[in-house]
Amino acid sequence: MTNVIIVNFKSYEEGTGRRGFELARTCEKVSLDSNVDVIVCPPLVHLGQYADELSIPVYAQHVDAAAAGSHTGHITPMSVKEGGGQGTLVNHSERRMRIADIERAVVECKRVDISTVVCTNSVRVSKACASLSPTYIAIEPPELIGGDIPVTKAKPEVISGAVEAIKSVNKEIEVLCGAGIKTGRDVRKAIELGSSGVLIASGVVKSKDPEKTMLDLMSGVS
Amino acid sequence: MTNVIIVNFKSYEEGTGRRGFELARTCEKVSLDSNVDVIVCPPLVHLGQYADELSIPVYAQHVDAAAAGSHTGHITPMSVKEGGGQGTLVNHSERRMRIADIERAVVECKRVDISTVVCTNSVRVSKACASLSPTYIAIEPPELIGGDIPVTKAKPEVISGAVEAIKSVNKEIEVLCGAGIKTGRDVRKAIELGSSGVLIASGVVKSKDPEKTMLDLMSGVS
Amino acid sequence: MTNVIIVNFKSYEEGTGRRGFELARTCEKVSLDSNVDVIVCPPLVHLGQYADELSIPVYAQHVDAAAAGSHTGHITPMSVKEGGGQGTLVNHSERRMRIADIERAVVECKRVDISTVVCTNSVRVSKACASLSPTYIAIEPPELIGGDIPVTKAKPEVISGAVEAIKSVNKEIEVLCGAGIKTGRDVRKAIELGSSGVLIASGVVKSKDPEKTMLDLMSGVS
Amino acid sequence: MTNVIIVNFKSYEEGTGRRGFELARTCEKVSLDSNVDVIVCPPLVHLGQYADELSIPVYAQHVDAAAAGSHTGHITPMSVKEGGGQGTLVNHSERRMRIADIERAVVECKRVDISTVVCTNSVRVSKACASLSPTYIAIEPPELIGGDIPVTKAKPEVISGAVEAIKSVNKEIEVLCGAGIKTGRDVRKAIELGSSGVLIASGVVKSKDPEKTMLDLMSGVS
Repeated sequence: MTNVIIVNFKSYEEGTGRRGFELARTCEKVSLDSNVDVIVCPPLVHLGQYADELSIPVYAQHVDAAAAGSHTGHITPMSVKEGGGQGTLVNHSERRMRIADIERAVVECKRVDISTVVCTNSVRVSKACASLSPTYIAIEPPELIGGDIPVTKAKPEVISGAVEAIKSVNKEIEVLCGAGIKTGRDVRKAIELGSSGVLIASGVVKSKDPEKTMLDLMSGVS
Repeated sequence: MTNVIIVNFKSYEEGTGRRGFELARTCEKVSLDSNVDVIVCPPLVHLGQYADELSIPVYAQHVDAAAAGSHTGHITPMSVKEGGGQGTLVNHSERRMRIADIERAVVECKRVDISTVVCTNSVRVSKACASLSPTYIAIEPPELIGGDIPVTKAKPEVISGAVEAIKSVNKEIEVLCGAGIKTGRDVRKAIELGSSGVLIASGVVKSKDPEKTMLDLMSGVS
Repeated sequence: MTNVIIVNFKSYEEGTGRRGFELARTCEKVSLDSNVDVIVCPPLVHLGQYADELSIPVYAQHVDAAAAGSHTGHITPMSVKEGGGQGTLVNHSERRMRIADIERAVVECKRVDISTVVCTNSVRVSKACASLSPTYIAIEPPELIGGDIPVTKAKPEVISGAVEAIKSVNKEIEVLCGAGIKTGRDVRKAIELGSSGVLIASGVVKSKDPEKTMLDLMSGVS
Repeated sequence: MTNVIIVNFKSYEEGTGRRGFELARTCEKVSLDSNVDVIVCPPLVHLGQYADELSIPVYAQHVDAAAAGSHTGHITPMSVKEGGGQGTLVNHSERRMRIADIERAVVECKRVDISTVVCTNSVRVSKACASLSPTYIAIEPPELIGGDIPVTKAKPEVISGAVEAIKSVNKEIEVLCGAGIKTGRDVRKAIELGSSGVLIASGVVKSKDPEKTMLDLMSGVS
């Protein structure tokens, strides 16, 4: 198991265009200087553009459950792969999917050989998604997303409960957590609770000093 | 009024990755060699990547009605602009939108200064969308999309009817048409019926010789 | 032109089951005692049940753009008609629809001979929907729905602007307005601004004395 | 375990209005004359209307993941209960839901004490949904729905696989199957494969003699 920090740029101005690319470079730098894997999820239109330049993994923020074909405006797993992406978020709380589509998206991502991070909102939904065998499941209680209290403090039992439920279905799925994560202490706690890392967005993207924030977060990985 | 041919790569394999980029280069070449504007709409993850290299306009296949912010997996007009896109399709038949969202997307695209091509399915919906003041309205009867009979032959009255209805609301909106368009003759007919050009997908993307097909299509623009 | 007050029960507890039926009876009583048309929109599962008993018009809260067929869990215009409904809301802010679906729903409702109240959020969208020729257009600025300030006070220019825009497209469409309407004074103002009546929900459904509230509202219709 | 036949009226003309009610009466009659439970799912607007008259259980075709409140045009579990419904289909292939919404719908249905029949399309999705603890899971391969070959013949391993997967998660969930079921032989096979009954639509609703068809289907339950 390798620990990982996934940085979701969302559609924040600070994560788009030139500023977004500089942020991605910062993530690359701190990752290469350490033993912690950092993955960036830029805005979708930048995926190929950033992946061409970066040596750390770039993931999509979303994929649709679609193979190649007449799907205007959809994000196919194949296009993510062709664009240089190594994986994708699936079912993020800001882009929820139908369960049959989550299954199809995970299957199609496996076919084109990219990783999947299925986002979930509860222990039960996490267990349900474990049956679909994604690479990662990232539990994020929606009410804590973008807030000031880290999930590791507000609901530690949700993380440990999700880890237990997911592993009872499929031991090979790595568990991540997110929502309100801001410091290395939060990351350490997340790992103690059984997760392999964190999913973070505003904490890094809207930080006044993203490099410092990233270094602090990474210090939580012993 | 300048005539235009918009090539929608959809999620076709032939329009993705290296093959997609070569197709875009072909579109660029034939456009620069002529007096006809050609616009390409690559898969969304390639938008920035292709726009960096091409000298013809690159449009997105879809935008969401969202400004910058917590919108994971959404396509914001601002990100299209920052990625180098000069415009976007809106409400394509494979990615229909709610009417309030079409309005918001058009307004946000204007704010960041990119063009909008609102796709419609009927004369009535075309007239309705004219009230939202996009740059272009592209009428495409859904039952003819991807088929063998061009809309110019199957339903010429839908094109002329849409032109009349749209211009009665706002004379500045350019009208395009699409569905089944394959030859220069179809393009000529489309222009005779009052449109400013065509929206084309499989006819070019799945052509065995896209350059030849493009040259034929462009011959329809006198 | 006849003035009308449409009472939307939403999914409020006070508008469901026995309590909902008593509320509908109250609406019926005050309407029959006056010269003001009152229409009730109960929860969808109650539509046929209430329509069987009431002598005032019952409208659905939503219809899907679907004719009879394999549409499990959809609300077809035909089923509304068969259930005794005389009309339906379309595109309510809590149930927005794609523009092509609004067109199809309006056409299908006409075919089965029930009225349509297309809800809109802005002057532009109101004008757009006028091209689809519904029976009524009800403008409700979303940010005022369920609030304390009536639209007639907060944004009178939106109502008069919508009336003008809609009538410029099709004079036969009646215009309604809603959001924050609570008193007869609000109704009078709404009518002065050119509307034919109001769409009201919590103001009546959550009133401690719905009969008194209804009588007050109706006093606004001279 | 009691065997059950659930008849989904969809939005078929034959299942709507007076004809729908007569069909429901037929289902009631054959059920009362036998030892087989029959449940009817009429069009949503008829739910309360039919439930008032029938002595067999009436289920909704769909519920939304919503408690009472400002949810215009939604189907709340509470309204189904108040309308006399004893349960509901959830996530039918013609009305797929997001996974977090399936969880919330099942929880809310339990709170108001109505049964849930979560529809699924594959063994994996069935196992996933078992973690959400509905009353029933009904597996229906979408490609067979409405067709001539019964799932029991085309894909028996999908039924037995779903039964095994579901029971491995939660033994108390009853498994149903559907798609192409037309005869008592199909029902017998479905039960032999481990299911508790079937979900059927066009086979009964579009039958020229629904009573005869129902009697034949029920003969498959020994």
